[in-house]
Amino acid sequence: MTDTTTAPVTVIGLGLMGRALAAAFLRAGHPTTVWNRTTSKAAELVAGGARLATTPGAALAASPLTIICLTDYTAVRDLLGASDVELSGSTVINLTSGDSAQARETARWAEQRGARYLDGAIMAVPPAIGTPDAVILHSGPRPDFEPHEATLAALGTVTHLGADHGLASLYDAAGLAMMWSVLNAWLLGTAMLRTAGVDAVTYAPFARMMAAGVADWLPGYAEQVDAGSFPAEVSALETDARAMTHLIEQSEALGVNAELPRLFKEIADRAIAAGHGGEQYPVLIEEFGRPAPG
Amino acid sequence: MTDTTTAPVTVIGLGLMGRALAAAFLRAGHPTTVWNRTTSKAAELVAGGARLATTPGAALAASPLTIICLTDYTAVRDLLGASDVELSGSTVINLTSGDSAQARETARWAEQRGARYLDGAIMAVPPAIGTPDAVILHSGPRPDFEPHEATLAALGTVTHLGADHGLASLYDAAGLAMMWSVLNAWLLGTAMLRTAGVDAVTYAPFARMMAAGVADWLPGYAEQVDAGSFPAEVSALETDARAMTHLIEQSEALGVNAELPRLFKEIADRAIAAGHGGEQYPVLIEEFGRPAPG
Ligand SMILES: NC(=O)c1ccc[n+]([C@@H]2O[C@H](COP(=O)([O-])OP(=O)(O)OC[C@H]3O[C@@H](n4cnc5c(N)ncnc54)[C@H](OP(=O)(O)O)[C@@H]3O)[C@@H](O)[C@H]2O)c1
Ligand SMILES: NC(=O)c1ccc[n+]([C@@H]2O[C@H](COP(=O)([O-])OP(=O)(O)OC[C@H]3O[C@@H](n4cnc5c(N)ncnc54)[C@H](OP(=O)(O)O)[C@@H]3O)[C@@H](O)[C@H]2O)c1
Repeated sequence: MTDTTTAPVTVIGLGLMGRALAAAFLRAGHPTTVWNRTTSKAAELVAGGARLATTPGAALAASPLTIICLTDYTAVRDLLGASDVELSGSTVINLTSGDSAQARETARWAEQRGARYLDGAIMAVPPAIGTPDAVILHSGPRPDFEPHEATLAALGTVTHLGADHGLASLYDAAGLAMMWSVLNAWLLGTAMLRTAGVDAVTYAPFARMMAAGVADWLPGYAEQVDAGSFPAEVSALETDARAMTHLIEQSEALGVNAELPRLFKEIADRAIAAGHGGEQYPVLIEEFGRPAPG
Repeated sequence: MTDTTTAPVTVIGLGLMGRALAAAFLRAGHPTTVWNRTTSKAAELVAGGARLATTPGAALAASPLTIICLTDYTAVRDLLGASDVELSGSTVINLTSGDSAQARETARWAEQRGARYLDGAIMAVPPAIGTPDAVILHSGPRPDFEPHEATLAALGTVTHLGADHGLASLYDAAGLAMMWSVLNAWLLGTAMLRTAGVDAVTYAPFARMMAAGVADWLPGYAEQVDAGSFPAEVSALETDARAMTHLIEQSEALGVNAELPRLFKEIADRAIAAGHGGEQYPVLIEEFGRPAPG
């Protein structure tokens, strides 16, 4: 085993996020090379021990592993596609946000130029980088990830999802959908309870318990999805739909926002109209797996 | 302290849920009196040791505590309002589903007739009754709840929320909104990952981790709501809105249902238009606290 804390690493892109990444590598003791279009943003890192490369090509050449984190994929392609940049032999991990198609295209493009390429997604804000709270997802060939796993651990909780370069951005997007869903449901509940004079702080533990409790059902429900069979072991979709009607009415009566319950009911009603009212909730995978009608 | 397992209890309404409630009391050793409009539904309980009352009034008179669980509040008022029913001196816990206005009205009505009245909500299916998984919420005067708390523990995880009789149904409704939100976000994520050939069972642990992780933020975010002050300590709403746009585009590109992300963005955009783009996500409480425009 190599001593991972001495593994050199390069960070290209020193925006808010790139600076946090480079600082975490420095704190963990890695010889860290940095480059940014606007050089001044490197000053604090250089004062902290980072080496400033004069060109992107020199930055790539300085370390076996290069992390790139720019505004978008166009910036990444523009920068790495310059005539004086040699990708061959480098391992590049692109932590720029983008969609799964961009990740897959950029992977093919970089691999054709001789790079080992991994695509990643950062599910954290800059101040969390370097702590276990920073979840950083990677996808691409596992053999290209494994030699750098210990180095990447300096950034947070680092996982490898699979060989398909699109996976990191898909998990990221799905995770954001969960985040906003939990926050919105909590805000709706908070608004409902406020009509009865209940503080948000008083209500929050209940919302937290509900979210965590329902989260525990997901692995079991997932088995129904994979089996494509949805027996109403616990309750039937039409029972949910009736309760959704009550939730809409209750929200309207209280004068809070009823848009979420209305959308939930619309989606459930479509599945019921398609004959699935007697099946269990995860049968809605069919509705979520296709665009909304109309 | 009274020996709570010998505390007599009455259950009125022996539908699917009422039978589960009475059976749980019997299993816990309580002398249990039952009544149902359709007498035949009592047969199994009577075989198990329950006493069958001949009238609702006799059922109420048989125990200091009566649980009632019928289809709806109209049925409860019809039954308890009959001329031969004496409510005075009884403690009635109504576990029938309804809204907060019905709960408060029925409380006033029952109290005027001399009853001690608590309103409850059952957040469980009948097979879970009698296990800790059955969360049963109560609201109404705490002094009327406390003498029966140990008896009610036979039904599951029993909590008292406060003196306002409407609280149980409000928490119930808010909890259901959270349940469907987590399930829908999980289904959307599952649909997205399936486009990359990822099984639901493979994806589910990530969705579970996200839901539980975000749930942990709620108590802290609730402090912002109560303070009415939403500094962007972690990120600003306009950053969320930009990421929502990406989620919409990603969903559309994958051919999955984009309705949820579109609604999330609509709600966020309204708050941004009202000048809150630089504040943190919980500032959306203002949007959730009022009806949708138009
Ligand atoms: N900040 C967060 O909370 C967060 C969280 C998760 C993911 N992310 C993702 O991380 C990435 C970077 O975010 P950030 O917050 O660091 O953004 P930022 O502060 O705006 O920094 C953008 C970086 O990209 C560089 N850049 C943009 N266009 C370029 C080009 N054509 N050529 C060379 N360099 C270019 C900028 O260089 P200059 O300094 O010269 O302008 C800067 O280093 C984004 O994809 C973002 O979605 C951010
Ligand atoms: N089942 C669940 O999963 C579940 C979960 C949470 C909450 N709940 C709530 O629990 C309550 C009961 O549900 P359930 O599943 O037991 O329903 P159910 O099986 O349909 O039983 C309904 C009960 O109400 C009685 N009833 C209806 N109208 C009546 C009237 N006018 N006079 C006298 N009795 C009347 C019925 O008597 P007959 O037998 O004579 O028809 C029966 O005992 C509902 O409010 C439901 O929302 C149920």
